Amino acid sequence: MTQQAFALWMQDVQLDVERALEACLPAATTLPHKLHEAMRYTALGGGKRIRPLLAYASGALFGGDAQALGRVAAAVEMIHVYSLVHDDMPCMDDDDLRRGKPTVHVAYDEATALLVGDALQAQAFQALADIDTLPPARQVTMLRLLAEAAGSSGMCGGQAIDLDSVGLALQRDELERMHQLKTGAMLRVSVILGALCGKDLSPVELEALKAYSAAIGLAFQVVDDVLDATADSATLGKTAGKDAADNKPTYVSILGLEPSKELAEQLRREAHEALAPFGEQALRLRELADLIVQRKA
Amino acid sequence: MTQQAFALWMQDVQLDVERALEACLPAATTLPHKLHEAMRYTALGGGKRIRPLLAYASGALFGGDAQALGRVAAAVEMIHVYSLVHDDMPCMDDDDLRRGKPTVHVAYDEATALLVGDALQAQAFQALADIDTLPPARQVTMLRLLAEAAGSSGMCGGQAIDLDSVGLALQRDELERMHQLKTGAMLRVSVILGALCGKDLSPVELEALKAYSAAIGLAFQVVDDVLDATADSATLGKTAGKDAADNKPTYVSILGLEPSKELAEQLRREAHEALAPFGEQALRLRELADLIVQRKA
Repeated sequence: MTQQAFALWMQDVQLDVERALEACLPAATTLPHKLHEAMRYTALGGGKRIRPLLAYASGALFGGDAQALGRVAAAVEMIHVYSLVHDDMPCMDDDDLRRGKPTVHVAYDEATALLVGDALQAQAFQALADIDTLPPARQVTMLRLLAEAAGSSGMCGGQAIDLDSVGLALQRDELERMHQLKTGAMLRVSVILGALCGKDLSPVELEALKAYSAAIGLAFQVVDDVLDATADSATLGKTAGKDAADNKPTYVSILGLEPSKELAEQLRREAHEALAPFGEQALRLRELADLIVQRKA
Repeated sequence: MTQQAFALWMQDVQLDVERALEACLPAATTLPHKLHEAMRYTALGGGKRIRPLLAYASGALFGGDAQALGRVAAAVEMIHVYSLVHDDMPCMDDDDLRRGKPTVHVAYDEATALLVGDALQAQAFQALADIDTLPPARQVTMLRLLAEAAGSSGMCGGQAIDLDSVGLALQRDELERMHQLKTGAMLRVSVILGALCGKDLSPVELEALKAYSAAIGLAFQVVDDVLDATADSATLGKTAGKDAADNKPTYVSILGLEPSKELAEQLRREAHEALAPFGEQALRLRELADLIVQRKA
């Protein structure tokens, strides 16, 4: 019953996010056609939309404005999608399959993949700048937070550390630092940007959201590593077993499989505990923590 | 005498821009070291800084705030530099030399070049979001304009059209449309963002700046094509004669060399005429139009 309500809520949000992305992305009939078609090919109709779900769940706690939430969701998803497009390119992970479809450089070509990523990043900032239902000062804060999370002190920085760590025996704390940037920064900012679509946050509420999002950000990566080691490509919608094949340090390679699963479970509990100040209202954020840890793909 | 004053003004601005970039870019001692080192390698110590010069010259007309102008200059330059880094990659123009130095993918590696570009783009938006001397509503407008100019309806879109036009016999109006996006969008927005660092613009002033920047935006590309056909690599600081070698449509290939030079000169006059509403005050913008058309590299 509760699980069904959660599934329906997720469906609603995913539809909303699809609509928001549709509205943010230029039509494929707008020049240049191929670029816009490729941007839509990779951004629409797929993905778990974890970052938008986090933004919506967090926004609901603070009475988030609907237009603003849609654009925040589109913005964080476009940053995520652009990073996947670039990450899949031959000079990075060289992956052919993403979300069950050929990657952009396979379906189109490498130069187009490069430009698709570049243009999606700009479009993400435009989505936030186009919000017209929030005070401009709030919007500037949100744009700053997104830039920090996406750039060299966030996602791009994490990817750079990841690149440099191939074949190295990382310590657990180094691996954790890498992931707090690579995937954690965008997951964390999704929670915060969602909240900023609503009423002002108290310091206690902000700290609670930060603790929650740090826990689920890390849990997400631990589970990713577990799935890469245990699931098959068809289930994942991307090539499984790549980390080991690429000699990349992972939680599974450092801690082992069972301790990695236990760590994910512990982080799930920490995420729940962090939400205590919000009581029953934080149901969706709790359910998302469960989803992140218990997902199969 | 006048020319000397202009040269000194340019030097001052270029020093200011270098300082602003220094301040915006994370230190090479900040993790991840290689990424930050590579960002600084490509962004600092080189380049004509045309876009920052335009922003400063236009900002001076409206009493532009110094902190804001520095960040605007850093932002437009970082977008420009990121586009060069990605454009030089093997899957795009495959160029080894830029501003007289090995390109980023040659000095480092392709994956680093990809991330350097991505991170510089985020850093550009952060630079604008970090301005704290302008009304937030003004800042949001500036962030929106930068996103539009950088994205698929601006620079990235122009690059996509450029890619698709290799080997095609473009008409002059198609070539013009491509360049109005590829280089024009960022040159135009540099003029407008500089102006927005100061007092409110009247509609007449805004139109005058738009006409000026459309003319110099196009002139810039016409002259680029002329130089690519006539100058040598050492003078240009990048590989000369590449357009013809790559079978790319250019003004020179469509109009011929002399008519291209005449077109540049005509655009220079149009730029001067557009500045009429500002009278003597627009001296630096006029001098920049001259520089853009009369440059040798």
